[in-house]
Amino acid sequence: MTDGEEALRAMKDIAMFILKSAEVINKDEIEDFINLLVKAYRENGRRKILVMGAGRSGLVGRAFAMRLMHMGFNVYVLGDTIVPSISKNDIVIAISGSGRTRLIVTAAEAAKSVGATVVAITTYPESPLGRLADYILKVPGRTKSSKMEDYFARQILGIHEPLAPLGTLFEDTALILLDGIVYSLMQKLKITEEEMLQRHANIE
Amino acid sequence: MTDGEEALRAMKDIAMFILKSAEVINKDEIEDFINLLVKAYRENGRRKILVMGAGRSGLVGRAFAMRLMHMGFNVYVLGDTIVPSISKNDIVIAISGSGRTRLIVTAAEAAKSVGATVVAITTYPESPLGRLADYILKVPGRTKSSKMEDYFARQILGIHEPLAPLGTLFEDTALILLDGIVYSLMQKLKITEEEMLQRHANIE
Amino acid sequence: MTDGEEALRAMKDIAMFILKSAEVINKDEIEDFINLLVKAYRENGRRKILVMGAGRSGLVGRAFAMRLMHMGFNVYVLGDTIVPSISKNDIVIAISGSGRTRLIVTAAEAAKSVGATVVAITTYPESPLGRLADYILKVPGRTKSSKMEDYFARQILGIHEPLAPLGTLFEDTALILLDGIVYSLMQKLKITEEEMLQRHANIE
Amino acid sequence: MTDGEEALRAMKDIAMFILKSAEVINKDEIEDFINLLVKAYRENGRRKILVMGAGRSGLVGRAFAMRLMHMGFNVYVLGDTIVPSISKNDIVIAISGSGRTRLIVTAAEAAKSVGATVVAITTYPESPLGRLADYILKVPGRTKSSKMEDYFARQILGIHEPLAPLGTLFEDTALILLDGIVYSLMQKLKITEEEMLQRHANIE
Repeated sequence: MTDGEEALRAMKDIAMFILKSAEVINKDEIEDFINLLVKAYRENGRRKILVMGAGRSGLVGRAFAMRLMHMGFNVYVLGDTIVPSISKNDIVIAISGSGRTRLIVTAAEAAKSVGATVVAITTYPESPLGRLADYILKVPGRTKSSKMEDYFARQILGIHEPLAPLGTLFEDTALILLDGIVYSLMQKLKITEEEMLQRHANIE
Repeated sequence: MTDGEEALRAMKDIAMFILKSAEVINKDEIEDFINLLVKAYRENGRRKILVMGAGRSGLVGRAFAMRLMHMGFNVYVLGDTIVPSISKNDIVIAISGSGRTRLIVTAAEAAKSVGATVVAITTYPESPLGRLADYILKVPGRTKSSKMEDYFARQILGIHEPLAPLGTLFEDTALILLDGIVYSLMQKLKITEEEMLQRHANIE
Repeated sequence: MTDGEEALRAMKDIAMFILKSAEVINKDEIEDFINLLVKAYRENGRRKILVMGAGRSGLVGRAFAMRLMHMGFNVYVLGDTIVPSISKNDIVIAISGSGRTRLIVTAAEAAKSVGATVVAITTYPESPLGRLADYILKVPGRTKSSKMEDYFARQILGIHEPLAPLGTLFEDTALILLDGIVYSLMQKLKITEEEMLQRHANIE
Repeated sequence: MTDGEEALRAMKDIAMFILKSAEVINKDEIEDFINLLVKAYRENGRRKILVMGAGRSGLVGRAFAMRLMHMGFNVYVLGDTIVPSISKNDIVIAISGSGRTRLIVTAAEAAKSVGATVVAITTYPESPLGRLADYILKVPGRTKSSKMEDYFARQILGIHEPLAPLGTLFEDTALILLDGIVYSLMQKLKITEEEMLQRHANIE
């Protein structure tokens, strides 16, 4: 197999992993998350959303936050220059495959302490982040702290070597799930792509 | 269909789009890109890689850059605080679905003017970015500037409404392709996941 | 002189440069800038402010943008994840000592083309950025593109070697001037420090 | 007084605060900090520097990190995309006026736990950050958590109202001090401005 073929095979394996993951993700968890977001949207002046994650999970959060902004949500990202004060009406979306990323757990604790609603997007609902969250969105994925035995891909795909290193499977699956949720929000809130394009950054 | 089911259906549609895209992406373009990266890796002290993209394409670039760093590449991201001077031995990877994002085209022109090698990851090889690039990696995707007639998903999936707004399909497909390329690079350069974990940020 | 004494002497030289600069900065330019900001504040729902700059000038812009946010302005920073669309009611503040930074000039041109009001904070009103701006705030400073003959510090302080490399004098002077403007805005808009603390990020 | 005059007066007050601060900053603390940096520079291949700070203190850290990079140091910034693993040979520079910023204290603890050398730049050596640090650089400044009685400016300048809100005095003083230290490092390491310009980002 050439390098190009190998790259495309790994690409397909990851896409297959995401497809299979869609079978096991809990619909009710998504439903609850969407309802929470819809409520925030309808009370937009009073409710802010703050998205946070470290490393590549943080990038997934940023990609989702951009789409929330395009839909008209009042949304911010931890790490941006412009981050407002958070209070009890606000929603914090924290993304961490392992649920143990120290700075994110610390930040989520700070959010809890001011009464904000915390949503954890994680593979481990029993992790420190999962346990403090008000809402969970469990996303399959081997995380970088997993043992090989815990390798979700293995059970699902019958693959015996790592097709993607560290947290890749969690991060990629979370991104595509969140993009699916964006689509569902557009339908529910009757937001057209044209409106989103109007709000898209034009200085870039 | 409930909102949760709709989100999962859209998630699957995007994953299917990525799977089908893997059929049409040019193996030789990937091969050339991998060879260029391998050469940079082997001459690491003398060759820097600078990754750039605006908006969500920029996030895809950052996710790829993190993995290059984990593999031991000498890599930087436009927009980070720490960005070195670029010269003729260096490689610039510019990501833009439309190939027309103004700041990215301007930055790529600046890179060309100092003699750096420019790789364009784009849906449109005939765009301004594509035309100035030394290497192209063509990635399917409707971009935010596309007309509906140009909607790749339609031909591939037979879907008649937008399953994902703006540049989503390009961005998601590019990310998973680049993660496939990471896997291929790990094999070729004999880099283990353990080594990558050693280089992974531990203050987070 | 020990290294510590030398560092403190250079620190004092920079502070002296800033003090002397305050003598030559045009009061009317500041006045016009403050009036523009006050107008934006009073029509906050309809007017956004976008701050931009590359490198250390970008950091100065970010520091000012944070204070504008603390005062209740509707403000964004180019390079943040969350950057909205800009239109004719909006104000762009572009910071560049030389007024020639390519990406900033390109971005300012894009802002002009949608009808936004552009403020240039620069040492060179006759530069490309200065010429396209609607408002100028001229700030002394040697910039990294200056010749030694053009070394402002020399004339003012009678110093014959560079006490601060590259754009340092411009950047530091611009920051302190903008912090002075923050104070003036607080007085004019009757904003207390307590209100600003309420808006200060509490997840950090 | 017009608004412009008031802004310039506040600008001068801040510059005066910085000048007076240079009288009370401990030369030996600077000396130790410079020696630590010089050692890192001379063992550049084996020693990384990681700079961290939240909000405007983080921006001050980034401004300093850019100059370290221009001088040829092996330097990174927490919050950038590209952040390597830190170990016992490395140096962490943490900036926090109050010394109590939660995410920075958590990150500094993580750095200590892997054996890195921690430098705290703070107004409060007895703060949580100060107490865990190996080196202190005490910088005057009222911080946003200070009571009015603690208002350094009052004692130094005899000023009776806040001339600058929140952490402004600390942040501005720290920036100018660090720029003074840059000058001292240039002399000690015999680095010319021309070399720094060679390393300055040219894609911007």
